[in-house]
Amino acid sequence: MDNVMADLTQHSLDTYAKEYGIQLDPATLDGIPEGSGFPEGVVLKFLNTPGFFRNAPVMAGSQEVIKALSEKHEIFIVSAAMEFPLSLAEKLAWLNEHFSFISWRNIVFCGSKTIVEADYMIDDHDKNLRYFKGAPLLFTAPHNVTLTDYKRVNNWEEVATFFALSNVEAV
Amino acid sequence: MDNVMADLTQHSLDTYAKEYGIQLDPATLDGIPEGSGFPEGVVLKFLNTPGFFRNAPVMAGSQEVIKALSEKHEIFIVSAAMEFPLSLAEKLAWLNEHFSFISWRNIVFCGSKTIVEADYMIDDHDKNLRYFKGAPLLFTAPHNVTLTDYKRVNNWEEVATFFALSNVEAV
Repeated sequence: MDNVMADLTQHSLDTYAKEYGIQLDPATLDGIPEGSGFPEGVVLKFLNTPGFFRNAPVMAGSQEVIKALSEKHEIFIVSAAMEFPLSLAEKLAWLNEHFSFISWRNIVFCGSKTIVEADYMIDDHDKNLRYFKGAPLLFTAPHNVTLTDYKRVNNWEEVATFFALSNVEAV
Repeated sequence: MDNVMADLTQHSLDTYAKEYGIQLDPATLDGIPEGSGFPEGVVLKFLNTPGFFRNAPVMAGSQEVIKALSEKHEIFIVSAAMEFPLSLAEKLAWLNEHFSFISWRNIVFCGSKTIVEADYMIDDHDKNLRYFKGAPLLFTAPHNVTLTDYKRVNNWEEVATFFALSNVEAV
């Protein structure tokens, strides 16, 4: 969900600009651990701020492609939400607003994703893809640009191409 | 979690007695669908009432046996919480209070449990055990007493015996 469906990188940059008056160059986040391109503690503070997850912008193309995928495949949204208890209700409300075609039956909030079994996992984190027994797809995020262990998808258009979707339409 | 770690049957009986002044005989719930032993809509109302999940009593023996299990095995708590959005934060707070030895990494809130992969699943519902690829253990609840498709455990003492636990102590 984070950095794949919800654009938390852009949201962190925007929130930082708004609250601290500093516009970071997104390129400065490339290839360094998530959050470490901001002063220490800033992103953690954002993640624990009520409303942060609820107001995250939707990743470009994710609605259209996931809608098209869901018409051909069984889709589960799996989010490592348990570390940030505030995020649970906010993420559910966010999904209900932006991905209303996803049933509550197909939403999973967890800590570790090692318990998940599926055919494919689209994720931005090595720690999630590493233990997955299906086919991993690494969704590009600034913190993973140097990672070469997985099939990479740079955006949702590439996900649509990978799954040979011809039914992608505006949501 | 529900009816396995949290005694929702007793909690529903107690809440019904308190709010409606009627003490149902627990035996009248045996062998009929969950909730159907109460007047229509009553249990659904309870499930959507703030505080209901947060104040559920702990199932006898569950803390001691899960603690002992967790010292020998990797334990995940998987709860079908997504149908009742209020329950998310309440269930997490409940787990943190009563099962503080379980890390947030090992907690999963979902809708359908079909995405879960593990070696064993202890659950009270056919719908959860039916699609599980590991070994299912049916935890006895009033609604499942006539079900004969699974290895049955009637209480946490029987779970401890099944897993040959010798390290069960008071939590």
